[in-house]
Amino acid sequence: MNKLPDDLKSINSIHELSFLARKIRKRIVSVVSHNGGHLSSNLGSVDAIISILKVFDTKKNSIIFDVGHQCYAYKILTGRNDNFDTLRKYKGLSGFTNRDESLYDIFKSGHSGNSISLALGICKFKKDFNIPGKVIAFIGDGSMTCGLAYEGLNNSSFANNLVIVLNDNSMSISRNVGAISKYLSKIRTNLAYLKTKKKIKNFLDELPIFGENLKNIFSKFNFKLRSLAFKDGGLFESLGLRYYGPIDGHDIYEMIRIFNIVKDSDCPVLVHIVTKKGKGYKPAETHPDKFHGISRFNIKTGLNIDEKKETFTDVFGKSLCELASGNKKIYAITAAMDRGTGLSEFAKKFPKRFSDVGIAESHAVAFAAGLSAAGYIPVFAVYSTFLQRCFDQLIHDVSMQNLKVVFAVDRAGFVGEDGESHQGIFDVSMFNSVPNLECYSPSFFDEFKKCLKIAIESDNSVAVRYPKGSELFKPSWLSLNDKLENYRFYGNNKDILIVTYGRIFSFAAKIFDDFPEKFSILKINRIIPLDDNCIKQACSYKKILFFEESYFRGSVSEIFGLNLLKNEFSGKFSTHAINDFVKHASVSEQLHESYLDYEGMLHILEVI
Amino acid sequence: MNKLPDDLKSINSIHELSFLARKIRKRIVSVVSHNGGHLSSNLGSVDAIISILKVFDTKKNSIIFDVGHQCYAYKILTGRNDNFDTLRKYKGLSGFTNRDESLYDIFKSGHSGNSISLALGICKFKKDFNIPGKVIAFIGDGSMTCGLAYEGLNNSSFANNLVIVLNDNSMSISRNVGAISKYLSKIRTNLAYLKTKKKIKNFLDELPIFGENLKNIFSKFNFKLRSLAFKDGGLFESLGLRYYGPIDGHDIYEMIRIFNIVKDSDCPVLVHIVTKKGKGYKPAETHPDKFHGISRFNIKTGLNIDEKKETFTDVFGKSLCELASGNKKIYAITAAMDRGTGLSEFAKKFPKRFSDVGIAESHAVAFAAGLSAAGYIPVFAVYSTFLQRCFDQLIHDVSMQNLKVVFAVDRAGFVGEDGESHQGIFDVSMFNSVPNLECYSPSFFDEFKKCLKIAIESDNSVAVRYPKGSELFKPSWLSLNDKLENYRFYGNNKDILIVTYGRIFSFAAKIFDDFPEKFSILKINRIIPLDDNCIKQACSYKKILFFEESYFRGSVSEIFGLNLLKNEFSGKFSTHAINDFVKHASVSEQLHESYLDYEGMLHILEVI
Repeated sequence: MNKLPDDLKSINSIHELSFLARKIRKRIVSVVSHNGGHLSSNLGSVDAIISILKVFDTKKNSIIFDVGHQCYAYKILTGRNDNFDTLRKYKGLSGFTNRDESLYDIFKSGHSGNSISLALGICKFKKDFNIPGKVIAFIGDGSMTCGLAYEGLNNSSFANNLVIVLNDNSMSISRNVGAISKYLSKIRTNLAYLKTKKKIKNFLDELPIFGENLKNIFSKFNFKLRSLAFKDGGLFESLGLRYYGPIDGHDIYEMIRIFNIVKDSDCPVLVHIVTKKGKGYKPAETHPDKFHGISRFNIKTGLNIDEKKETFTDVFGKSLCELASGNKKIYAITAAMDRGTGLSEFAKKFPKRFSDVGIAESHAVAFAAGLSAAGYIPVFAVYSTFLQRCFDQLIHDVSMQNLKVVFAVDRAGFVGEDGESHQGIFDVSMFNSVPNLECYSPSFFDEFKKCLKIAIESDNSVAVRYPKGSELFKPSWLSLNDKLENYRFYGNNKDILIVTYGRIFSFAAKIFDDFPEKFSILKINRIIPLDDNCIKQACSYKKILFFEESYFRGSVSEIFGLNLLKNEFSGKFSTHAINDFVKHASVSEQLHESYLDYEGMLHILEVI
Repeated sequence: MNKLPDDLKSINSIHELSFLARKIRKRIVSVVSHNGGHLSSNLGSVDAIISILKVFDTKKNSIIFDVGHQCYAYKILTGRNDNFDTLRKYKGLSGFTNRDESLYDIFKSGHSGNSISLALGICKFKKDFNIPGKVIAFIGDGSMTCGLAYEGLNNSSFANNLVIVLNDNSMSISRNVGAISKYLSKIRTNLAYLKTKKKIKNFLDELPIFGENLKNIFSKFNFKLRSLAFKDGGLFESLGLRYYGPIDGHDIYEMIRIFNIVKDSDCPVLVHIVTKKGKGYKPAETHPDKFHGISRFNIKTGLNIDEKKETFTDVFGKSLCELASGNKKIYAITAAMDRGTGLSEFAKKFPKRFSDVGIAESHAVAFAAGLSAAGYIPVFAVYSTFLQRCFDQLIHDVSMQNLKVVFAVDRAGFVGEDGESHQGIFDVSMFNSVPNLECYSPSFFDEFKKCLKIAIESDNSVAVRYPKGSELFKPSWLSLNDKLENYRFYGNNKDILIVTYGRIFSFAAKIFDDFPEKFSILKINRIIPLDDNCIKQACSYKKILFFEESYFRGSVSEIFGLNLLKNEFSGKFSTHAINDFVKHASVSEQLHESYLDYEGMLHILEVI
């Protein structure tokens, strides 16, 4: 396998390039089958990446990947094939582009729709300092449902060095939704239309045979007609881009031809390529969404190797269906992740009360506010990291309006192999900064169900945050009241208190089981607002240790500390939270590195 | 003047409606000349609002205003004319729509681009429960540069009860920018094109006279041709909306005619009206951006009544120009507010290093990240409240990338009459939640200049936040070192310490001048991260009072408190910050109500 983009120079036959593509696909399938990862879109983009690297010299041109679900082939072709086996592993290659990892990666990626904006920054600098070369934003059609991408498009007219490669695989993670998607699909599939177009074009070309009057009308109007109606990308042309497409994104010859034209263009360009998600690996072609992000699997069967335990996501999906059966006002929203958030069943059972809005989290929350004002109880199920896109909507469209929206915040805390961009470690600080919002952080499935019920029934907006994966160690002594308490103390030690919430309570509980006299535990369920009483009670202890799977500033432990002080607590207080971005590794490794697992907590207990 | 929408029923002559429009304009000019407010866009929308209310019964139809800069006539016509003199005053009418104020207002407004999403929520509920009537989103062309609006459009295809009224006045606050703006302007102005269009349409209507072959082609293709090329709104039609326009937004007859057609439409509709900002008041017609948001003025001359003091905004504009003269890497970005953020001069002097990206704050930050990665030092000048839209970009596109961007955060703290949606009280919590970001909060102009210099020269991303208006009381004893310290202690009292930062330091300083022995002061300049040393030093005091013009959770006082505790501080600590949304009033009144002015601080000092 070649090592660097320059090695592509020597390969000049399409046959060889296609052979290389097949080899890369094989490598990707093999590594992902061992390490897990994003398979479908990474298989779909191989031919396009080869074509781009063949035409655009990386020394002069910059390539930016949107989201980064499509960059594996790029990694392999830019000096990282040898390490590719370490993909998504602790201290190995990141599953996304990563500027810490390679000079070929200009940005770290993970969130959608920013590639055009980022590219425009580079375009502007290059233009101002007369640096030649193009800036290529490689973006999926899913990301095009994102408002940020549109803001980028709307600001791209200056950038005659911008090339947007729209990789249209008709899906974001689930099947795509919305008008843009319909629009692309129309272009893509309507072959009859394409043929008619050709005929009409011929007709127009022959126009002068008509009378003078018509001829005049048409000659004035010809250009506009062409740009508006006779190119498929009328919408993009309206936004000032030159449109090329649709092009078969697995036809390396054709892509190279078009990229060579585009290379010399003097205006911003959008090249619309159509690819097949999962290309080249049958199970992924058949079930592209199942193989979008996947844990390790058997290559032959396509089946997961690891036993699938019930997850919080599963429990959410089931519980919401149950609640919705008894309450016609419950409405579920996802931003392009019905499967990922556990809403597939809900979508089937209650199609009228379900919306997939595309990768448009800000819209999701504002839409929820509208539903709520009208009379629905909207539930927005979203990964913690993507809810960051809604800070203003939380404040302005929900809280300030005093409207009630439920936030089901999945992937709260460490998420493992997806790494930095995906960690759910900022939602607690974010929720703390929003007035009139309650937040619960359950540790176990049954608590989680109670939280959801509270959230639905409350008059306020309520967020329930829960981790990736399954519940952990559940102690026998856990209180199982019907009603979920805001907090609960366990243990008889009057000196040392561990305070915690969410998943990592399990570690504290396990240590407690092993060393029952060593400390007591305060388990917090409602983390926002904190119940004053638990802080007052905590004041009687001599040493308090707060463990929190969250970014440390704006966190619960900070507020807890402040209120201890206000309550004239005179003992020792230490906080153990997350104080920076956390790289890819397994969740266990991430917890371990942050001293938030059994060993970490025990170590800290012994040190203090 | 009529009181309620129903009163419009009895007015049936266009002449009388136009007369009413003139009366309303006069009333608006009169009240805004006394109270200040948003003048230009509110004058421009009067005829449209009358036409909408004439056609759409408010009992059945819902009207949602985007931003709310255009709702004064609506207020006047929905029972609030008698109170209209109290506009923007303490306990008076809000300058925006406000659901606490009137049942006619479905939402509070203030931020851009959310009206379509909010409307869609209502549309969905109405559809699902078979409630008749339309939902009207009244949105300016400026808001159309906002990604959120696009996300709404992209999700609107289901909503056959949605009517978007696009009020196109070719400006947001400053003159509009971007592709959408160009697109609208093309539609608006190209009269020759409009005429040609008519001719072509006639030609197409007569098509059957051509030979069979052509006829077949055209009959298949006719609809598509019409929708793509022969309607002006091809872009909107591409997104699945039926487009009507452009329509003269001051022609009440024509608007009523079109709204009556639209009223019975069976698909989502966009009505494009073209209005003149400032319509009917000469000075505002001539200088629409000056009269966008304005303090009280002389009606005859159009000149401001209040003497204009130098503001932080002015100082920013000047300082950045100075810094940029000596540093070719400095690049300034605004989101549709070159004038509001003081960048007009910069834009003139350094047009190549200036971008107005439209109302697209998320893009602004991602674009800045791109500029930074390439080699520029981007400075994004933005109001605190609008930066809320960038939380994810701060984390994902700036901090996680370890890129350096400067944030010039204007309108930090209370903003006065614009009220709830505009208060700059959440930026501190937001910045606290973002890793690797420094934040300064100067109190005076000279400090501010030093902060800007530090921000430009630092290797890190730095935010400098500064208030609306001018500097306040500046004590003679203020240290004026060349270098700005992270913090400084003043006074000899060893028992009581007031800690504060930003504008309200002036009040503490004034009290200190009046009662010099009563307490000492700790003035913090770099609020993020807090300097450990100032907390250690503070520990020697017996009572510490922290005053902060910021939302209380996630704030500086909270972190200060936590760290006092960790440093085994055993005295009393009290925090005085903002704990909810704050309604419109003057800044002085807002500070007073929050105990953050001279009297408030003194009162708290005496109470404790």
